[in-house]
Amino acid sequence: MRDEIWVLTTNLDDCTGETLAYCMEKLFDAGARDVWYTPIFMKKGRPAYALSVMCKDDVKDECIRIIFRETSAIGMRVSREERVLMDREAVTADTPYGTVDAKLLTYEDIEKTTIEYESAKALAEENGVPLSAILK
Amino acid sequence: MRDEIWVLTTNLDDCTGETLAYCMEKLFDAGARDVWYTPIFMKKGRPAYALSVMCKDDVKDECIRIIFRETSAIGMRVSREERVLMDREAVTADTPYGTVDAKLLTYEDIEKTTIEYESAKALAEENGVPLSAILK
Amino acid sequence: MRDEIWVLTTNLDDCTGETLAYCMEKLFDAGARDVWYTPIFMKKGRPAYALSVMCKDDVKDECIRIIFRETSAIGMRVSREERVLMDREAVTADTPYGTVDAKLLTYEDIEKTTIEYESAKALAEENGVPLSAILK
Amino acid sequence: MRDEIWVLTTNLDDCTGETLAYCMEKLFDAGARDVWYTPIFMKKGRPAYALSVMCKDDVKDECIRIIFRETSAIGMRVSREERVLMDREAVTADTPYGTVDAKLLTYEDIEKTTIEYESAKALAEENGVPLSAILK
Amino acid sequence: MRDEIWVLTTNLDDCTGETLAYCMEKLFDAGARDVWYTPIFMKKGRPAYALSVMCKDDVKDECIRIIFRETSAIGMRVSREERVLMDREAVTADTPYGTVDAKLLTYEDIEKTTIEYESAKALAEENGVPLSAILK
Amino acid sequence: MRDEIWVLTTNLDDCTGETLAYCMEKLFDAGARDVWYTPIFMKKGRPAYALSVMCKDDVKDECIRIIFRETSAIGMRVSREERVLMDREAVTADTPYGTVDAKLLTYEDIEKTTIEYESAKALAEENGVPLSAILK
Repeated sequence: MRDEIWVLTTNLDDCTGETLAYCMEKLFDAGARDVWYTPIFMKKGRPAYALSVMCKDDVKDECIRIIFRETSAIGMRVSREERVLMDREAVTADTPYGTVDAKLLTYEDIEKTTIEYESAKALAEENGVPLSAILK
Repeated sequence: MRDEIWVLTTNLDDCTGETLAYCMEKLFDAGARDVWYTPIFMKKGRPAYALSVMCKDDVKDECIRIIFRETSAIGMRVSREERVLMDREAVTADTPYGTVDAKLLTYEDIEKTTIEYESAKALAEENGVPLSAILK
Repeated sequence: MRDEIWVLTTNLDDCTGETLAYCMEKLFDAGARDVWYTPIFMKKGRPAYALSVMCKDDVKDECIRIIFRETSAIGMRVSREERVLMDREAVTADTPYGTVDAKLLTYEDIEKTTIEYESAKALAEENGVPLSAILK
Repeated sequence: MRDEIWVLTTNLDDCTGETLAYCMEKLFDAGARDVWYTPIFMKKGRPAYALSVMCKDDVKDECIRIIFRETSAIGMRVSREERVLMDREAVTADTPYGTVDAKLLTYEDIEKTTIEYESAKALAEENGVPLSAILK
Repeated sequence: MRDEIWVLTTNLDDCTGETLAYCMEKLFDAGARDVWYTPIFMKKGRPAYALSVMCKDDVKDECIRIIFRETSAIGMRVSREERVLMDREAVTADTPYGTVDAKLLTYEDIEKTTIEYESAKALAEENGVPLSAILK
Repeated sequence: MRDEIWVLTTNLDDCTGETLAYCMEKLFDAGARDVWYTPIFMKKGRPAYALSVMCKDDVKDECIRIIFRETSAIGMRVSREERVLMDREAVTADTPYGTVDAKLLTYEDIEKTTIEYESAKALAEENGVPLSAILK
């Protein structure tokens, strides 16, 4: 499966970690598909972070606005990129502690199952067992 | 406001930090708009840095030459990317210790002011106060 | 010299370092030109790594398959990028401990020589001297 | 003001980001004072993270147990370190949008005020203004 | 179980990634228990790496000598630290593709099993299956 | 040669890169021997930096004060560590472009020479040659 996605990127050397975490939260609230920070070293010896956002057409303008409103960014790069995706289907998986939500992922003849984190976490906490007891 | 910018990128596992800092200085001297280093982990267990440069058409060829001359790079990726920018206007801002240079930035209805670092630094040092006393 | 190259990128917050190193090995075995990991900070407080692969047309599909098979990735960005390369010629270089393989690299009037790591390493180990005694 | 604190540290190359974030949550729940992850590059080309925990005597044993239970760690370094701390007093600060919780911090003749993040965040969200409008 | 271990640390801003990887190899050959690199940002805008080595008494002097011989270090910090370790016992684990070497780890009432990477890797390659098919 | 040195460390999630670079400058002005930043990932999804300072007894108190005055730190760890150092002697080294300042470093039977960066840089710039032409 293929689609296209927008990637927004900006380098931030005058924002705090608190502000960066707050901005990430607002971007996810607005519908961004992924948001991440990369440590970078900028001019004048400044340790900094690059902010990257992946989003679809419908929320792109709002994501740009959030970045300008919530961070010190005065510009950002905007590029459209192609993605290759595995097909995904919601399934459930059995664990020694009960059933969890999972995704069955397929691409050509490759098949794998991923357990949903929130579902595994809930089961681990309910049963007082390590997360790894559910995920394995 | 929109424009287009060149981004040059290369991965360097056989350059020292001294050389990387020297190269950044030469790139800014040549007119690069931004230069940054990202820590990356490469083949054969090599801790390394990716060099990234943003520049306009007029200095692109010189930036490529500086990278080839000053680093161990034998190739680099060159891509043209679109940017979204806030409109900017030079203004001044009042602080308890005097006036500093600032930029008034606007994008649609979003407006913010950024104090120029060098101006804030000069005022902090003149007055023997923390930088934060000026920037706030 | 110019060419074009594919860059595959995916963010991995549910893969271990062991798996990432194994996947890098498989990608190089399949003919990838370069593979690297970048530390990134993702949603829900997850420390993670971005995987990047540079490869030519002939192995692109196999690289995509390796990433889907060996990691937890459910999607990846795929972009075609232009590269600028120095011309390269296999040469040898003399060191106080014997001859090593090297590359003579040229771009316009810029010329530099890079000693091949594996060749330098072999000579350092044979002679019981530091690697730097060969590389200088 | 001075005190002593335990620092627990372990390098993890066979844990996922999901697991690391889960473990951080459990460590804070148990009373750890600070928990953080540092990207590191380990043997056999493995991109990894170091986990560090700062905690007081009363929860040290439980923090050790959480790390062993929730991660792949088979050992950790445990050291007792001295800290220098600013004196802190709970205060409030006025902002254009209302009052926020803050801390007045003093050390010898140095005095500064830090606004509490959660309090600033609540006010920003209530008033539909950027976080920076509160923090400044 | 508790023991004590030496930790050697030095910051390197004038060493290449090639040299750092070579030095790691020599340190492990000499008997170091763990070696890792941490990205750091140093003076004069230099992107750099910190080298850390954990070793026992018997190889400490040789590890110091390797660092001085193979890197640009002119000094290093040397500290003795306490460790808490899980008890470990060599066991085997069954997988759908055969038996692998593993370690049974115990600490108080916590018990976990870790599959040995090299053993899992060999089995994955023999059977043409993903590494994850063995590790799970 | 052995000596002892103070190491000050603090985690900063509410400081900007501009402020971090300014603080590093003030710490070196005050006589710190080394200052560096390490990217770390802290609580509540905050990308951050750890500040580390190495200093001697005579400037330790001033370094602590600078960190409290110039950053958002409310505490820091302070530890005394032992160092092993190579003996150093100021020498000069010949290059194809003239003489540069260098250090002759010795430890037991290990001997190496390091060219002083500022001296190499001056010569490279005077002669219009790459820095590597001097350093090799």
